[in-house]
Amino acid sequence: MKINKQTYYYIWRIIVSIAISVFSILFPLAMIFDWATYFNTPIYWVIHIIFALDLIISFDQNKRMNDDEVFGRSYSVKKYVRGWMIPDILVSIPICFLINIPILESVKFIKFLKVGAFMKNLRQHEIQYTNTLILIFSLFWFLHALHNLACVWLALFGIDENLNQISNYVNSIYWTATTLTTVGYGDIVPSTNMQKIFTIFMELLGVGLYGIVIGNIASILTKKDPAQAEYTENIDRLTALMKIRNIPKDLQQRLRDYFTYKWKNRHGYDESEFLMELPNSLSREVAIHLKKDYLSNIEIFKDVSEEFLQEMALSFRSVIYTPGDCIFEAGDDGDCMFFVIKGTLDVTVKGKSIAKIKEGDLFGEIALFMNTKRTATVRADTYCDLYRLDQSACKRVLDRFPHIAKKIQSIAKKRSDELV
Amino acid sequence: MKINKQTYYYIWRIIVSIAISVFSILFPLAMIFDWATYFNTPIYWVIHIIFALDLIISFDQNKRMNDDEVFGRSYSVKKYVRGWMIPDILVSIPICFLINIPILESVKFIKFLKVGAFMKNLRQHEIQYTNTLILIFSLFWFLHALHNLACVWLALFGIDENLNQISNYVNSIYWTATTLTTVGYGDIVPSTNMQKIFTIFMELLGVGLYGIVIGNIASILTKKDPAQAEYTENIDRLTALMKIRNIPKDLQQRLRDYFTYKWKNRHGYDESEFLMELPNSLSREVAIHLKKDYLSNIEIFKDVSEEFLQEMALSFRSVIYTPGDCIFEAGDDGDCMFFVIKGTLDVTVKGKSIAKIKEGDLFGEIALFMNTKRTATVRADTYCDLYRLDQSACKRVLDRFPHIAKKIQSIAKKRSDELV
Amino acid sequence: MKINKQTYYYIWRIIVSIAISVFSILFPLAMIFDWATYFNTPIYWVIHIIFALDLIISFDQNKRMNDDEVFGRSYSVKKYVRGWMIPDILVSIPICFLINIPILESVKFIKFLKVGAFMKNLRQHEIQYTNTLILIFSLFWFLHALHNLACVWLALFGIDENLNQISNYVNSIYWTATTLTTVGYGDIVPSTNMQKIFTIFMELLGVGLYGIVIGNIASILTKKDPAQAEYTENIDRLTALMKIRNIPKDLQQRLRDYFTYKWKNRHGYDESEFLMELPNSLSREVAIHLKKDYLSNIEIFKDVSEEFLQEMALSFRSVIYTPGDCIFEAGDDGDCMFFVIKGTLDVTVKGKSIAKIKEGDLFGEIALFMNTKRTATVRADTYCDLYRLDQSACKRVLDRFPHIAKKIQSIAKKRSDELV
Amino acid sequence: MKINKQTYYYIWRIIVSIAISVFSILFPLAMIFDWATYFNTPIYWVIHIIFALDLIISFDQNKRMNDDEVFGRSYSVKKYVRGWMIPDILVSIPICFLINIPILESVKFIKFLKVGAFMKNLRQHEIQYTNTLILIFSLFWFLHALHNLACVWLALFGIDENLNQISNYVNSIYWTATTLTTVGYGDIVPSTNMQKIFTIFMELLGVGLYGIVIGNIASILTKKDPAQAEYTENIDRLTALMKIRNIPKDLQQRLRDYFTYKWKNRHGYDESEFLMELPNSLSREVAIHLKKDYLSNIEIFKDVSEEFLQEMALSFRSVIYTPGDCIFEAGDDGDCMFFVIKGTLDVTVKGKSIAKIKEGDLFGEIALFMNTKRTATVRADTYCDLYRLDQSACKRVLDRFPHIAKKIQSIAKKRSDELV
Repeated sequence: MKINKQTYYYIWRIIVSIAISVFSILFPLAMIFDWATYFNTPIYWVIHIIFALDLIISFDQNKRMNDDEVFGRSYSVKKYVRGWMIPDILVSIPICFLINIPILESVKFIKFLKVGAFMKNLRQHEIQYTNTLILIFSLFWFLHALHNLACVWLALFGIDENLNQISNYVNSIYWTATTLTTVGYGDIVPSTNMQKIFTIFMELLGVGLYGIVIGNIASILTKKDPAQAEYTENIDRLTALMKIRNIPKDLQQRLRDYFTYKWKNRHGYDESEFLMELPNSLSREVAIHLKKDYLSNIEIFKDVSEEFLQEMALSFRSVIYTPGDCIFEAGDDGDCMFFVIKGTLDVTVKGKSIAKIKEGDLFGEIALFMNTKRTATVRADTYCDLYRLDQSACKRVLDRFPHIAKKIQSIAKKRSDELV
Repeated sequence: MKINKQTYYYIWRIIVSIAISVFSILFPLAMIFDWATYFNTPIYWVIHIIFALDLIISFDQNKRMNDDEVFGRSYSVKKYVRGWMIPDILVSIPICFLINIPILESVKFIKFLKVGAFMKNLRQHEIQYTNTLILIFSLFWFLHALHNLACVWLALFGIDENLNQISNYVNSIYWTATTLTTVGYGDIVPSTNMQKIFTIFMELLGVGLYGIVIGNIASILTKKDPAQAEYTENIDRLTALMKIRNIPKDLQQRLRDYFTYKWKNRHGYDESEFLMELPNSLSREVAIHLKKDYLSNIEIFKDVSEEFLQEMALSFRSVIYTPGDCIFEAGDDGDCMFFVIKGTLDVTVKGKSIAKIKEGDLFGEIALFMNTKRTATVRADTYCDLYRLDQSACKRVLDRFPHIAKKIQSIAKKRSDELV
Repeated sequence: MKINKQTYYYIWRIIVSIAISVFSILFPLAMIFDWATYFNTPIYWVIHIIFALDLIISFDQNKRMNDDEVFGRSYSVKKYVRGWMIPDILVSIPICFLINIPILESVKFIKFLKVGAFMKNLRQHEIQYTNTLILIFSLFWFLHALHNLACVWLALFGIDENLNQISNYVNSIYWTATTLTTVGYGDIVPSTNMQKIFTIFMELLGVGLYGIVIGNIASILTKKDPAQAEYTENIDRLTALMKIRNIPKDLQQRLRDYFTYKWKNRHGYDESEFLMELPNSLSREVAIHLKKDYLSNIEIFKDVSEEFLQEMALSFRSVIYTPGDCIFEAGDDGDCMFFVIKGTLDVTVKGKSIAKIKEGDLFGEIALFMNTKRTATVRADTYCDLYRLDQSACKRVLDRFPHIAKKIQSIAKKRSDELV
Repeated sequence: MKINKQTYYYIWRIIVSIAISVFSILFPLAMIFDWATYFNTPIYWVIHIIFALDLIISFDQNKRMNDDEVFGRSYSVKKYVRGWMIPDILVSIPICFLINIPILESVKFIKFLKVGAFMKNLRQHEIQYTNTLILIFSLFWFLHALHNLACVWLALFGIDENLNQISNYVNSIYWTATTLTTVGYGDIVPSTNMQKIFTIFMELLGVGLYGIVIGNIASILTKKDPAQAEYTENIDRLTALMKIRNIPKDLQQRLRDYFTYKWKNRHGYDESEFLMELPNSLSREVAIHLKKDYLSNIEIFKDVSEEFLQEMALSFRSVIYTPGDCIFEAGDDGDCMFFVIKGTLDVTVKGKSIAKIKEGDLFGEIALFMNTKRTATVRADTYCDLYRLDQSACKRVLDRFPHIAKKIQSIAKKRSDELV
């Protein structure tokens, strides 16, 4: 529901933006080339209808916003009546139809302020698309500025009667672009003082434009993806270490591979940390969604309560093992159990491989619940993403659910007896 | 008082800046167009009076600064006498009136150094307006540079006798702007070696100018608002998580909403952290101002000492709950109490809603002071900003005020008896 | 093995990139100057053979990638068939040979997308050469863009029959470069509307080009080498301290020297921290490689197990001493031992220098294992990089290897008896 | 001593840099304008003598560097013989005197590489002047590039016989600057293919030049002074807090004043933290220098050992109090003592001011050493920078020096008896 409301609002804002864009493209041309007919075209009327509808929709939207708890009550009917309502009404009047002084129509340009406010709003809410939005918005404003400045230039220089309207317009756009981009061929130059002052203004605008374009690109390029930043830093530290110390080539490659694996498969990002910063209720729900596939695989957790599973899910920590790493050896204390998210592992007893552990499997649970020693050695065949549940965390949860604890232990015992 | 002193100082500095600006605009024009009259106009005299007053005011200000404890004793009378006094005197002499060698008036340009020092000072003290100030100052220097460079150009190229003064000036400004902005139409080009060397100098200046404009814009654009930076990072991490794991759409939206709420309503900013970094006395005062509305609502705190309330206020921590979150359930231990800053909560007993808790209310205090179990379940209806007071923090405070502790406990007991 | 696979892949991608580059240089020229012969030259056929081979190699590579554990399974045969296979086939068809409509050959430009994907891939995996790669790739794209835009210009302006092909091409490249770099001499200007619109497009492209060039340079320049950043910060803090407090010149110099030494010889980088972030198995191996030269020097560790040495190696911490620093004094408790990585130390008994300790030596081990007091004073002669092994860490390791512990202690006792 | 060696080395490098600069300015001009005499002028011979001396000095310096412990042994005789010696010899041969083929002299330009290496070295060691050095070095390279490119242009375009040498040179510099800065008036344009290709190269160089200038300025502007960054952040957080909460104007001003005071007087920088990161010996020496003025003021510390004072000095922590803050009240436990670095404090007994404490004073020591309660209340009159010595830290030090501890306690007792 909420998403849809937001989406409808966005679509309507885009329609209004298109309407004001069309107006701002056609109106200056109509003024310069004396297109008297423009003020009677369907386009002219469609624009006015859209503006009139916007008045109603904005009013309605501000009324509804009162119960929008997420984004706060920053807008309300009162604010709208005092603020945007009067401009909205002004803009929706078909002035030329009423008093026929075309220049007054230029009051409609204030609608661009609302487009600007919408763009700012959009950029703040859709932060993940910031760069794309900056690009689109910059192009929007730049092309409108180009068009309107070209029209001012036509007004100042006068229309060349030897050329048709299109050539005149192309010429003025050509001059404007050539000046704003500081190319300045010099084939068209200002001659009167007025034209020169306008040119000075254009040149300064060009500097500002460059500053904004380049500043934006630089700010996009200097923004670091946090995962890649971590990877780069690790590689940098490795390189620094290799410069002052002697590390075998093979080990260097393995270190590099490890960092690359970590970066590629987990995006340098630790789940546990993310969960910890969430409020209690959300972190539980996210944890359960991330880990329920693994939990539902555990036979001894078959008939336990949802709440117990949530607590368990919160206690998992993800760990990485590199190929050849030993997860535990036969004879070690059984102080944790593992769930395989990715990769395969090899189970060996006295050097003989007796089984493979694959994605989705869990292992080490019997020694954990029975408090016995490991009976086999487990090594990683490939890079392995595992979830690890420590004994202490497990105990903490079981203490809160004594009934379940008793049941699990009896099941575990039965299973372990069966295995023996 | 202190604010006013500072403000007066700022206003006077702005007046002096305007005076030197007016001088630097009129003087080069007077030199080039032989405006002999300029040196007798009221403007000329007003400028000199302002400069003379500045001498006195600066002296006085440096004397007073000795007792300014906040900004340190960096300025003092001695420093002034040895430093700025002589230039200030030089600048306030109406040279043309005394010896009539107009070119000597150019010594007044050194006053610009003082404007520069003032601007630096202003930027350091009004850090929250840095961007605006950079913009205004840049424009100030750029326009003055443009004007003065245009005048130098006029002096080097000679005045075109066929044109009036305004056209001559517009032409030179036009050429200067066209060169500095690197547009370079090529309709006016240097012909003598001297002119060419000046042009080379201008072109290099243009590169530097671009560098500063673009560097400033880039530095403004790459500056991150800390609250938004945190929000962006959270959203980024969420996006990364969603890429590698399967999270239901609904939960994704709730996570996004939570981060948005946090960003919008608290600006990614934790009060407690801020208070901790302040010196003891300030942190107490701020805490009491932030929380006294809530404290005065608590009946059992009615007649306690101010100091006790301050200690209490310091112990509050703010927490957020999302809609549907359970704050506590009936039967839980009563280990904390809450004050509602924003949002509404629902009190239920055995699944039946029995009451609503609203902004400004407190709840959970009886179980806290009486060491009993919760008698009802409280859930958040909407996003809730709460202050939370933990039992341990509460106890620590009460231990320091044994008399109050006894009194509060007896009141709490009476109230809880009444409720039962 | 893995390295080679990756390297072959890179070399083949580079060959394909050269093939498409050669095509994109020759094809537009052939179109404009009507080089009918081009479509029958060996170059034309070599390019097609390379493209055909690429189809086979890409297919094979995607099949093999399934068992590539390090970089994940992002590519696979299915993906390739649905994605790049069809373009790859299209590109490898010698269209002109079959239907003789040269313009259709331009479909081959889509192969550039694959070059782009390869560049992105390369930049992500070879992060340590990011800056060099950005430079090379930027030049690659810029020169291709320049060439193709110049060819478009030739097509739009028409060939000047008075000039030979080379002059025509140089002219168009000259105009393109002059416009893209915003120099804009104005000796060649567009005359038709079509040409003007193309020029506007070129000017806007120039702005974007500038933005990317400058943004990249700025992002490279603002990137900080972490070691240098730490050094700079330390020097900054020292400077700040010297401003407000009185520190003797000599001490200032020593502090500066210390920071410089730290920066130069260890690149502001702490080994222990790096090791701690690695998975267990890798950190052990790196530690053993870094420290085994020192461990093999220790007589009492001669015949101990590899695993024991690994544990020991992990417990070393590196420390720096400045010239004149006292490492320990006679009579101190023997709570650690040291290995000299760099520098020389002076051993004194009652003020008399009795020995020098040099790179590769270890000292302090007897007092550590025998639990006696130091019998001599050791001072640093020069800057010294030492590894330090604390008693607690040593004990922790020995507890895990009781047999070795006993043996070492008996050897240490014997040695210490011999020394006495 | 060390400083001087470094300084002599810098001065000699600067002399060599000037020699190669002079050569690179005169040689191209001599080639273009056929100054046959140049190769016999004293300047020519002075340059060669400097280059010959550089050979000897570099050799000698690399020999000496072996015992330079601070900057490492990165250079040595062997390295020099294999690396820079052959170029150094080549450059010091007066080729024109021997074989009279002027163009061969251009081999001397390789000496610029050594200037570059020197600049890099200088920038790394004088990090606190980075920005100034970048500016100077950039100008150096830019002006040399400008001159040499202008000479190439003269060689390509040919000398205009109607103009004298100076005009020819100014013209070529003018064209080069106009092109490199992308102004491009178009009054001088290339006509041959060769000239056009050179122009394209110049234009691309101009883009790169812009990139470097702007990138450098942007990187300077985005660099944050850490003290100011902290201040800005504090002010930002304050502003954020004021937006969502109601804080009285007066308290806002006091908070702002506090941050400003902290920034201005201590540069956002905490001594203790800085000391902790230094090696033991250095941190003691710095601590003693910072605090000995205060320690020598304490009567009871009159005749104690230097080592004891060092330990004490390390235990001080600096604290700030704002005007009106209570340092301690009569009746509080005497758990610390204070030294006043800056500011004045007011001592009151039962609300009556009985004394003032000023810079350099210490207070609270009797209660500390006698373990009694405070007998008076002390409040800050102004902002106060104090050093604070806690009881626990004091005890820790006294435990290590039992003799001094006894002595001090007896003195303190005597003094406190006297006071009573």
